[in-house]
Amino acid sequence: MKKSVGAKTQLFPTPVLMVGTYDEDGKPNLMIAAWGGICCSQPPCVAVSLRKATYSYNAIVERKAFTVGIAGESIIKEADYCGIFSGRDFDKFAVTGLTPVKSEHVDAPYAAECEVVLECRLLHTIEIGLHTQFIGEIIDVKGNENVFSEDGQLDIMKIQPLIFDTSHKGYHGVTPCIGKAFTIGKELQK
Amino acid sequence: MKKSVGAKTQLFPTPVLMVGTYDEDGKPNLMIAAWGGICCSQPPCVAVSLRKATYSYNAIVERKAFTVGIAGESIIKEADYCGIFSGRDFDKFAVTGLTPVKSEHVDAPYAAECEVVLECRLLHTIEIGLHTQFIGEIIDVKGNENVFSEDGQLDIMKIQPLIFDTSHKGYHGVTPCIGKAFTIGKELQK
Repeated sequence: MKKSVGAKTQLFPTPVLMVGTYDEDGKPNLMIAAWGGICCSQPPCVAVSLRKATYSYNAIVERKAFTVGIAGESIIKEADYCGIFSGRDFDKFAVTGLTPVKSEHVDAPYAAECEVVLECRLLHTIEIGLHTQFIGEIIDVKGNENVFSEDGQLDIMKIQPLIFDTSHKGYHGVTPCIGKAFTIGKELQK
Repeated sequence: MKKSVGAKTQLFPTPVLMVGTYDEDGKPNLMIAAWGGICCSQPPCVAVSLRKATYSYNAIVERKAFTVGIAGESIIKEADYCGIFSGRDFDKFAVTGLTPVKSEHVDAPYAAECEVVLECRLLHTIEIGLHTQFIGEIIDVKGNENVFSEDGQLDIMKIQPLIFDTSHKGYHGVTPCIGKAFTIGKELQK
């Protein structure tokens, strides 16, 4: 028997995405979005939802570009800081000590300390309600050299991505692999 | 120094969402979507992306409703099965033994064994490319009685949500809380 908690934004897991933009003066900024995820395989696209009131909103509209950095456990305080304060009031790179890097392919910055970053070109803007969803085409994905496994692929256990708990507003980590996808379910097929 | 892996759908974490629908004959079906996430707070909305070729695609278009169940570790094999096979060929509830339950508020089913379920009314349909994004308004969120903590809120450690690794195609779990959001970043503000 299930118990209702009402019409709430509860989902498990949600990511901790560091959205990187330049403002009109070219100042780099980072904000945190837990409302987002991959939304298409071809073209490869990622969606992030922002309130119009955020400092990053106009930056994305103006430059038609943003980055999505994966916040790992090593920068948990820096990521949380970027989710509390506004780039309108503070230079978040200066306060956190994170290092701004200009993207190779799009007009947006990222933090060098983000283990993985997606460089995105704005493709669609969807007005939903309090949040506007920006769909970005993923032009390139980059990872720091220390987060690759021997097979040359990105290694989630080295990335140590943060997970945001929508219920108790905490950050969690990721456990080692507990099952191989598209494989372990096959044994149910008689 | 970062190394490029190209334009790929890599994001960490991505969720394991069990999308529940009725087909034209009223047969309940479940599929797995890792491409999705919360996309608006007011109205509360969740997005899931499906290929047109999936059996669930027409069901959502026709009934304008779907559920999003959170796949927990206890049903990892059942969830994986639902991500491998098509409802066009199999009755996935019958094969997996999962129990179909009709939603209270929308015209879609869910699995009783999903610890948490979101009942959704179709709000927007966004054609992106290979995937179509369905944005659903969350009408209600329900949880099994065993996944609530003493404060009456959903407890992520009891839900044990699965995480999908886009790089090595494996399932992972969630560790205990490692930091309080909107709190631990404040100490960086001098």
